[in-house]
Amino acid sequence: MSHLPTQLPPVVEILLVEDNPRDAELTQRALRQHRVVNELVWVRDGAEALAYLFGASGDPTAHLNRVPRLILLDLKLPKVDGHEVLAQIKADPRTKGIPVVILTSSREESDLHRAYQSGTNSYIVKPVDFDGFVEAVRQLGFYWMLLNQLPASSSSSTPPAP
Amino acid sequence: MSHLPTQLPPVVEILLVEDNPRDAELTQRALRQHRVVNELVWVRDGAEALAYLFGASGDPTAHLNRVPRLILLDLKLPKVDGHEVLAQIKADPRTKGIPVVILTSSREESDLHRAYQSGTNSYIVKPVDFDGFVEAVRQLGFYWMLLNQLPASSSSSTPPAP
Repeated sequence: MSHLPTQLPPVVEILLVEDNPRDAELTQRALRQHRVVNELVWVRDGAEALAYLFGASGDPTAHLNRVPRLILLDLKLPKVDGHEVLAQIKADPRTKGIPVVILTSSREESDLHRAYQSGTNSYIVKPVDFDGFVEAVRQLGFYWMLLNQLPASSSSSTPPAP
Repeated sequence: MSHLPTQLPPVVEILLVEDNPRDAELTQRALRQHRVVNELVWVRDGAEALAYLFGASGDPTAHLNRVPRLILLDLKLPKVDGHEVLAQIKADPRTKGIPVVILTSSREESDLHRAYQSGTNSYIVKPVDFDGFVEAVRQLGFYWMLLNQLPASSSSSTPPAP
């Protein structure tokens, strides 16, 4: 599992935003075992996720060169929480089209309601048992990486403007 | 399969918006066979879909009494096309949280791009062969009805204000 590697792959399949190393490890194992993902980048907090997606320039017209095909987003995160990350992704036309799946232990009505109003594509409550967790990740990986269709442009890497 | 029945179920699980009777029949069969859905309402064009969801009052503050847990939406539809239906669903806070899966034969980049920018939750291209179609519907039914989580309030029926 790569944690903000300096050598980034040209196309990132999944961005995993998860502060719990055990859940992150399990998620990656489930996805790789079932061959639904080739590349996964793991970041541990909301600030890293935003920096990864939007870069440091802050220019809202800049091309993004790292556009994952799927974002798995925990809600309770250090620095910037998942709700704020989701809101920023869905408010920006450059990232609005990336499927975001909230993957959290929270079943709180307020979290569910807020996530859907912010435009989350899906919301999955982490099963508490090991087997259930692995199976849920396998199912969601299959659905989003193999069944769901994205525009071709969103899965290709666009170099930043010079 | 019910086509705008006069006796509506109190909780509608899936609203299917599809003008092709063969695809509609096949979709319902796949979902029922695998017991992922109890209630399905089928409407044949975009105008019926909007009337079903928003009623005739046009009052944007009215409570909606028919909130499906999932909307399967074709794009090429008579009267009002799927893009317009999607845009209206995702622009209204009362319906924004309902998962919408575009289920279409179109792989056009422009359709994909527009659907994601309008906030579709997912986009599935109908497999051309019979078995592939049934399997895709089974998978999406499983994912959205069993794995994905919704707020409790969105799956219950709220009576309209007197």
